[in-house]
Amino acid sequence: MKELIEIEFKKLQDYICNELEKIDGKSLFQSDIWNRAEGGGGTTKTISNGNVIEKGGVAFSAVFGDVTSDMKRQLGTEGDVFFATGVSIVLHPNSPHFPIIHMNVRYFELDNGKYWFGGGIDLTPHYVIPENASIFHYDLKKVCDKYDSNFYEKFKVWADDYFFISHRNETRGVGGIFFDHLSEGNCSLNKEEIMQFCLKLGYSFPEIYNKQIQLQLSKSITDSQKKWQQIRRGRYVEFNLVHDRGTKFGLVSGGRTESILLSMPPTSMWEYNLVPENGSEEYNTLNFLKKGINWLDYKDK
Amino acid sequence: MKELIEIEFKKLQDYICNELEKIDGKSLFQSDIWNRAEGGGGTTKTISNGNVIEKGGVAFSAVFGDVTSDMKRQLGTEGDVFFATGVSIVLHPNSPHFPIIHMNVRYFELDNGKYWFGGGIDLTPHYVIPENASIFHYDLKKVCDKYDSNFYEKFKVWADDYFFISHRNETRGVGGIFFDHLSEGNCSLNKEEIMQFCLKLGYSFPEIYNKQIQLQLSKSITDSQKKWQQIRRGRYVEFNLVHDRGTKFGLVSGGRTESILLSMPPTSMWEYNLVPENGSEEYNTLNFLKKGINWLDYKDK
Repeated sequence: MKELIEIEFKKLQDYICNELEKIDGKSLFQSDIWNRAEGGGGTTKTISNGNVIEKGGVAFSAVFGDVTSDMKRQLGTEGDVFFATGVSIVLHPNSPHFPIIHMNVRYFELDNGKYWFGGGIDLTPHYVIPENASIFHYDLKKVCDKYDSNFYEKFKVWADDYFFISHRNETRGVGGIFFDHLSEGNCSLNKEEIMQFCLKLGYSFPEIYNKQIQLQLSKSITDSQKKWQQIRRGRYVEFNLVHDRGTKFGLVSGGRTESILLSMPPTSMWEYNLVPENGSEEYNTLNFLKKGINWLDYKDK
Repeated sequence: MKELIEIEFKKLQDYICNELEKIDGKSLFQSDIWNRAEGGGGTTKTISNGNVIEKGGVAFSAVFGDVTSDMKRQLGTEGDVFFATGVSIVLHPNSPHFPIIHMNVRYFELDNGKYWFGGGIDLTPHYVIPENASIFHYDLKKVCDKYDSNFYEKFKVWADDYFFISHRNETRGVGGIFFDHLSEGNCSLNKEEIMQFCLKLGYSFPEIYNKQIQLQLSKSITDSQKKWQQIRRGRYVEFNLVHDRGTKFGLVSGGRTESILLSMPPTSMWEYNLVPENGSEEYNTLNFLKKGINWLDYKDK
């Protein structure tokens, strides 16, 4: 089955890149095919300086090899040989009014028969508009509900907890869904259905993101909004390098640095102790970067 | 004695800021005084948009409190109450021809009688000029040699190992000196002398940095050099957030985020798989970002 999952994930990457090129309308993805000395490899597709996307990456990889002692510690399970495949996306848009978005679906198995799926989508608007966040969360709920009516609620809380910048006491954005270690024993789906759920999430991604773009298409941009975007990109860097388990584990365990850091923004800024003016759009955004907000409540203006 | 060390470190901060203002010739430091709920506090001095320094910070703190379980794990030693004081500096200059510089001196003690000093200075040129790196290392050697003729060699290797971006297989810059856990039992100096060594290092800092600036003062700047500076600043971010023990420990253990992230550059850039052209200045710089280079060998052109 792992061969099937690998093939399906590769097809998913191609589909998403094609759709994103249509959404962008200007730039095209460049492919970088790489091999891993220890086994397997991947195709990293990158796009830059588009109409919508300033810097983005859609990475596919399928790697295998001996389970290292680092991995054993991290996994907390036995096994001698692993196989891992996945698709990872981060898109940094040009406009501060378009949100940053991240998606990941992944599959991992060990030669002892254990396997699991993981993944998620989360949205990081530079300026939070609760009604748009609500649309995003309804879109995710719709995908989840097709497979298990408990998924959305469970995976939404999981995303709040995961995409949290503890040293800033801020969520990374308006969250989304996050799940890990999903396998036949611990959810209502069988292996084939979990794969279908992951694929459905992936195939829904371009439309979900495009909707967020279309909602903000007509907005003009000021210098102070561009600056705020740079500051929020800095926070994205902080989350990914300090807290994101995948990034940290990848970087210290000898993963492919350029693929792992595909998530980095094109540019970013830091300023000492920047505190937005009370009542400003930036101030309001910070007030929405909290865990536990029920975005579904913001459906109608 | 801890009161004396605290007073001396505070005086050192003031001296360094005064000297840096003279070197900069335009911007002045702004002071931010803060208190820590659990005990102690600090003064964070920041400077921005100067003639030389685009963004810089000189932080002083003196904090105390109960030893937490996190600290016990990190320290590997017992004790119920700790006291820590130090001065930390990171300067990000305007010009890509001026190097980024970092300095730190710190003192830590426990109520069980254990104490130690730590610190160091390291230089991160955007473009490595080995003759300038050599001058920098001779300056550090001169300070070290006054106290112990083995210090420079030992602390230079320590800096090479510490300021290493393992996921890039690059050193952060041309290194310098780094030392930790220095106390009467494990070096040739007594406690008072170790403090004097740390202070001497601190008082030498402005002149050491100014020399590096003066060497590069007349250089004009191209757009591609500005871009390379942004890329190297991105590497600085990567080192600090992924590898720097002080930063990581501070951020996850509830330290003061704005003080810890004073080291962040004003701006930075990331580009997928950027590989400088063979033989370019950028290419040559990467070839110098290696451990074990004896910079003293590059004395004369």
